[in-house]
Amino acid sequence: MNRKTESLLSVEAALSRVLDGVSTLPAEEVPVGEAHGRVLTGPLAALRTQPPADVSSMDGYAARAADLTAPATLKLIGESAAGHEFAGQVKAREAARIFTGAILPPGADTVIAQEDAEAEGDTVSLPAAKLGQFVRRRGLDFVEGKTMLEAGRRLTARDVGLAAAMDHARVRVARRPRVAIIATGDELALPGTGGDPNRIVASNPISLAALLRNENAHVSDLGIVPDKIEAIVAAMRLARDNTDILITLGGASVGDHDLIAPALKAEGIALAFHRVALRPGRPLLLGLAGPLRVLGLPGNPVSSYVCACLFLVPLLRKLQGRTDFAPAPVPAVLGQDMKPNDHRQDYLRAKITRGGDGRLVASPHERQDSSMQALMVESDGLLIRKPNAPAAKAGEPCEVILFAD
Amino acid sequence: MNRKTESLLSVEAALSRVLDGVSTLPAEEVPVGEAHGRVLTGPLAALRTQPPADVSSMDGYAARAADLTAPATLKLIGESAAGHEFAGQVKAREAARIFTGAILPPGADTVIAQEDAEAEGDTVSLPAAKLGQFVRRRGLDFVEGKTMLEAGRRLTARDVGLAAAMDHARVRVARRPRVAIIATGDELALPGTGGDPNRIVASNPISLAALLRNENAHVSDLGIVPDKIEAIVAAMRLARDNTDILITLGGASVGDHDLIAPALKAEGIALAFHRVALRPGRPLLLGLAGPLRVLGLPGNPVSSYVCACLFLVPLLRKLQGRTDFAPAPVPAVLGQDMKPNDHRQDYLRAKITRGGDGRLVASPHERQDSSMQALMVESDGLLIRKPNAPAAKAGEPCEVILFAD
Repeated sequence: MNRKTESLLSVEAALSRVLDGVSTLPAEEVPVGEAHGRVLTGPLAALRTQPPADVSSMDGYAARAADLTAPATLKLIGESAAGHEFAGQVKAREAARIFTGAILPPGADTVIAQEDAEAEGDTVSLPAAKLGQFVRRRGLDFVEGKTMLEAGRRLTARDVGLAAAMDHARVRVARRPRVAIIATGDELALPGTGGDPNRIVASNPISLAALLRNENAHVSDLGIVPDKIEAIVAAMRLARDNTDILITLGGASVGDHDLIAPALKAEGIALAFHRVALRPGRPLLLGLAGPLRVLGLPGNPVSSYVCACLFLVPLLRKLQGRTDFAPAPVPAVLGQDMKPNDHRQDYLRAKITRGGDGRLVASPHERQDSSMQALMVESDGLLIRKPNAPAAKAGEPCEVILFAD
Repeated sequence: MNRKTESLLSVEAALSRVLDGVSTLPAEEVPVGEAHGRVLTGPLAALRTQPPADVSSMDGYAARAADLTAPATLKLIGESAAGHEFAGQVKAREAARIFTGAILPPGADTVIAQEDAEAEGDTVSLPAAKLGQFVRRRGLDFVEGKTMLEAGRRLTARDVGLAAAMDHARVRVARRPRVAIIATGDELALPGTGGDPNRIVASNPISLAALLRNENAHVSDLGIVPDKIEAIVAAMRLARDNTDILITLGGASVGDHDLIAPALKAEGIALAFHRVALRPGRPLLLGLAGPLRVLGLPGNPVSSYVCACLFLVPLLRKLQGRTDFAPAPVPAVLGQDMKPNDHRQDYLRAKITRGGDGRLVASPHERQDSSMQALMVESDGLLIRKPNAPAAKAGEPCEVILFAD
């Protein structure tokens, strides 16, 4: 096949093939304290009302606004502290000591802060007050039965707090997607095995696992498989049971040593596409067998990471029922002049800083060699250059994808 | 003490008191595959050179540029595949088949892509080529002995990939900070215990634990302690051993039911400050006893979360040796008109969206009641209003702190 005439799938078309027909994984119940970052499978409604009654937002005195149209000295009849119901009732010309969070005694409708009051024996002198002052009304925060968190929402730290406040000890979330990773290549070695110049370290399973765990994936790293079709087929057979996504690294191109496509064929996994018009990452394949999705990523660590950001992260999100699954490009401005682009969509590794006016400024590294991991660690995200984009000047608008960490 | 005349510490002064004298926690060694998000305690240098030799970046043919000043037919002498050293040497008028990632045979200095070549029997016809074309030079990515990741860096997914590629099977990171949380209040109940109107759910330990775990904290939730000084002292005594940070929730003010300051005194823990000029969160105390730091946060879930973002997150970061520990306000523009501010620094819960020009737009919620968790889940961050800030118009510049999740 000729590099210049081959037919390549667009990034958008490839992503929609990856996501096509994906349905949400089954739900599981987890303790609310372990639900951070997980995705709700159903709407979450309040099991109680908060505050459960009218409560004081200050330490002070609870009284009747009708008695405080002008400063007044009222009779002190008792005390209401948080967690301790006050049995009595505040009648005309009466007041009760009250503390933050305590329920207003029946009859009282207003709170006066303690620093504005002067208590003496069983009376207290209070200034004029506005009806309802320093009172948090019953249900101010939420009311029993009302849905406060929607299905498909990834739970933030604040969300799990609200879920707990709504009295949920456990919540239903999509189970973790199961991902298996196979790295292929006779040249690969595990980290820590020394400096043989014929070997390089299989480092992309490490960075991909970190990226995918951040999306709640349960990652099984199946290690390194040599460039032999029987070995790759055997690894695929082992991995595909009990797996939602099988990732292969390397061997995704069409050379003599590229064995992923033949191995998929041998395993009866249909090849949905094989090449995508993007850089880095042209050799990128999708295999389908029932609900199993096989993503064949380039062996190159930069290419595989970029492809994982573009295709795998959205897939993991959609599997968990997230509605905001697609990568969201963010507007920025170019930090330098750009040459015209060719027919492939470029994702340039870039430093992304914030200008004084608050806009993001994207400055791609001069070298974009897709083997250079050192430049990945100095990048904050990817500058998107559309296929056949014309030349552009520093300061012109552009779009970036920010790395999550 | 009078609300209007009390002397309050500024947010900046309080933060520097919290961070004063903090030294980095001891290092521990973790597998590189578990190091994502952890903080390096020392610089990390490459244990190998990458690529370890000059390698091909394409499937094709390795030859000598001197033979390819014009198209030429060369003698095919063998093959170099990744992971398999080619024993021979490419001499004048010779070429070797080569595959992506394979080492260039001695003598060869240039690679021609296979789609530009025509092999026939033991010869191959190649076009003219530029010296060094499609060759990745030895050490292009990194060279043995060079520091590629600095001490104090929080490891991203890309960083752990690079560390592995540099042949580190394990890396040294700061051990996890140990945090104990005690929630105080007679009105508190665990989530899932029903609708008694005299009880509210202790939900802030849940959201704080999620926030702090994201900063690598090992969190021990010691549960709910009643408003009794002996109970609080007993819980503090239990918690302070083997803890770097003890967080108390509630009881941090100066009312009759505010027992944290007296309990600290009873435990011999020095009170460094007790009130800070911020909203939400004025009652906020710092206790010091040797390396132990006690943060007494307001019981209110919104206030405690905001204070944790402002003081606890930087403390956790500094404990792990991060250099970028301070909260970094980000420039934005106001989404609406603002009234003048009083003497306290305000952290307004706000929707923060991105305008078409790429700038962030901060729109604070109209209600800012510090008991309202529902508004926290609808907020993306905090709009900072300086003490005594004048009125401001929509569109004017402002600063925000973005929530991490």
